[in-house]
Amino acid sequence: MLEPALYLIPVTLGDTPIDQVLPTYNRQVIVGIRHFIVENVRSARRFLKKVEPTIDIDSLQFSELNQHTDRKLIDTYLNPLREGEPVGIISEAGCPAVADPGADVVAIAQRCGLRVVPLVGPSSIILSVMASGFNGQSFAFHGYLPIEEGLRIQRLKQLEARVYAEDQTQLFIETPYRNLKLMQTLLQVLRPQTRISLAADITCPDESIHTRTVSEWKKLLGAARTDEERQRLVPRCPAIFLIYK
Amino acid sequence: MLEPALYLIPVTLGDTPIDQVLPTYNRQVIVGIRHFIVENVRSARRFLKKVEPTIDIDSLQFSELNQHTDRKLIDTYLNPLREGEPVGIISEAGCPAVADPGADVVAIAQRCGLRVVPLVGPSSIILSVMASGFNGQSFAFHGYLPIEEGLRIQRLKQLEARVYAEDQTQLFIETPYRNLKLMQTLLQVLRPQTRISLAADITCPDESIHTRTVSEWKKLLGAARTDEERQRLVPRCPAIFLIYK
Repeated sequence: MLEPALYLIPVTLGDTPIDQVLPTYNRQVIVGIRHFIVENVRSARRFLKKVEPTIDIDSLQFSELNQHTDRKLIDTYLNPLREGEPVGIISEAGCPAVADPGADVVAIAQRCGLRVVPLVGPSSIILSVMASGFNGQSFAFHGYLPIEEGLRIQRLKQLEARVYAEDQTQLFIETPYRNLKLMQTLLQVLRPQTRISLAADITCPDESIHTRTVSEWKKLLGAARTDEERQRLVPRCPAIFLIYK
Repeated sequence: MLEPALYLIPVTLGDTPIDQVLPTYNRQVIVGIRHFIVENVRSARRFLKKVEPTIDIDSLQFSELNQHTDRKLIDTYLNPLREGEPVGIISEAGCPAVADPGADVVAIAQRCGLRVVPLVGPSSIILSVMASGFNGQSFAFHGYLPIEEGLRIQRLKQLEARVYAEDQTQLFIETPYRNLKLMQTLLQVLRPQTRISLAADITCPDESIHTRTVSEWKKLLGAARTDEERQRLVPRCPAIFLIYK
């Protein structure tokens, strides 16, 4: 019998085999849970089938959670746990409650003194810090940058200032089809010697993680003649940007 | 045959079974590597034996890496990779190159255009962000705080200001035997409504992750009569502190 707790269940980043990025222990936990809180029922079912093909999906209960879900309703999602049954949160990609609505459920569980157990899985944030060669003793993840050009540039200058003043690696993300645009902004705004690491499609077959100075990126992108060549340098796929000195 | 690259190989946090925190894929990678860069040869050998009991340790080459290792020597550690053989970095705990000297090797590999592949494993930083219920869209890890009391308090006030001004979760660590002292400082310095999450012994049998306001922590610690009771609240083991509003 699985100990009653709110289990935070990571999923693969993209279409990667389960065994490449998730410990086998996660499967043991998953098969012990009947109540799941999920962002999208269809993809959660697909994930569970992939983890355990013999799973009886119809015996499971799914509660949907997204930005529009009412807070009072979210609270009731934890009722099975209050009655002594384990509950799982499944994210859409990577680790739940890191950059998704799962954090609200966890906050409620913590407030109610319910046990919360995070499981190991792929986090593009940690994997990219590891592979960048940048400072991992001090780093900050900022999610998306402001969209408005002026604010975005101001923010980037602030983050670059922190790289030098606080010796801190700065991480942020962008919608895939805007990756190239963001890279071009970085190359305009940042100092030539500042280093940019671009980690794309982490843990997937096309994974690419490259760290170069602003000058080097400029030279490479300047030499790229076609959109295809530019996309080889800055792929149109889930990616994370890191800057450091 | 394993593709030539610098593989970043996480280990368990404490004495946890391998299958609880590492994907089986990591074992496949490990058995394909003959050259390892490690912080401590003895514990690296022990880890490899645990991952694969049939491994022929004596056929493997270990290069030791710590704060005192000469930079020029570090560069030569990558020679096997330059000649087309995979190389692995093994950390002492958790993910390599996040809060250990491995980052220097990765930086050299990136500068030389060598491929770097991070493997999934337990990161107390990500696991604690997940389980805290705090903002995972924006968070900063700061490693150790300044030791000198005045500087430490100043730093804590700065980090708390960022919680409110930037809506950013702040993470830091302490040497285990000083955890209680740090908690007491937090309770003196931070606002009563600020929340503190203490994640101790993550992924280990005694794992405890609790989020409470400064007021609540104060009340609980104030009511603790013995050292034993205080240590139950703030364990003397590897832990990570998080603050948020």
